[in-house]
Amino acid sequence: MNLEQRIKEIIKDIPDFPKKGIVFKDITPILLHPELSKAVGNALAEHAKSLNIEAVCGIESRGFIYGSIIAQALDVPFILVRKQGKLPGDTIAYSYSLEYGTATIEVHSGDIPKGAKVLIHDDLLATGGTARAAGELVKRAGGEVAGYSFLVNLTFLNGKERLTSLTPNIFSLTNY
Amino acid sequence: MNLEQRIKEIIKDIPDFPKKGIVFKDITPILLHPELSKAVGNALAEHAKSLNIEAVCGIESRGFIYGSIIAQALDVPFILVRKQGKLPGDTIAYSYSLEYGTATIEVHSGDIPKGAKVLIHDDLLATGGTARAAGELVKRAGGEVAGYSFLVNLTFLNGKERLTSLTPNIFSLTNY
Repeated sequence: MNLEQRIKEIIKDIPDFPKKGIVFKDITPILLHPELSKAVGNALAEHAKSLNIEAVCGIESRGFIYGSIIAQALDVPFILVRKQGKLPGDTIAYSYSLEYGTATIEVHSGDIPKGAKVLIHDDLLATGGTARAAGELVKRAGGEVAGYSFLVNLTFLNGKERLTSLTPNIFSLTNY
Repeated sequence: MNLEQRIKEIIKDIPDFPKKGIVFKDITPILLHPELSKAVGNALAEHAKSLNIEAVCGIESRGFIYGSIIAQALDVPFILVRKQGKLPGDTIAYSYSLEYGTATIEVHSGDIPKGAKVLIHDDLLATGGTARAAGELVKRAGGEVAGYSFLVNLTFLNGKERLTSLTPNIFSLTNY
């Protein structure tokens, strides 16, 4: 079995989460299998190395899990992208539209080295709203969006299409 | 300089966060320094190894950053402790009192192997309310609380005293 098949065997479908009619792909069971989890971390790190990534942004909060592992494997800074009000220092913010209302994400000012090739990491790509916003935020903060990585891409939601104007390098370990 | 001194040089004091009168210790600058961040991960992993830890619980959300790194270093399961409603599957919950009102934290049912020696990890030990609750949750879920680890212990808040009845093994890389 290749890595995608092994991941798909372990990921759990959770019907009606976070709301009725949505089947949530729960990646947390991967974390319970150390050998598989290590293979996932290695594959994500290999992808980041191939792009000569100079900094990794992890999107709150599941993006912190492998984001920190990727950054350590590459010996590059790890930067938290968080919801508004969660980062204690001075921040740069970016607001975006959701299905209902708007949301704002932030990074600490000065965290992203100017012109650095940044990888944006999260566990799952759905509609791409937050991932797109994270890319715009990285640009606003002076970084170059050099790639995205995810464990899961729900391709039927076309999230990738919202990201390709930022970078052609959009990688996921599994696709549904 | 030893590791504690290096960390203290990098941690930022943020006055009046999250509320007036509190000086917040911001550990995120550590993540921007790959060599220091690796030393932090290694020190936390060495501590966990010395306790023969069989599973690591990371407390939402900054506990995910090094929690996943410790678990990978030890080749053991990594388990998310999250606020109520964030975990998609069936959960075991534990409620506890805060200064105002109550809070509830959860783990996925079945995630904690029965009788496993569990390390509970978070970035910072303050009053110990959430850390204590995480320990009670681990016990409720069938695990053994074998140790706690933190990057920072605000010793003047006496959080350690709330944990010692669960385990004598309470470790932090820095103390204030």
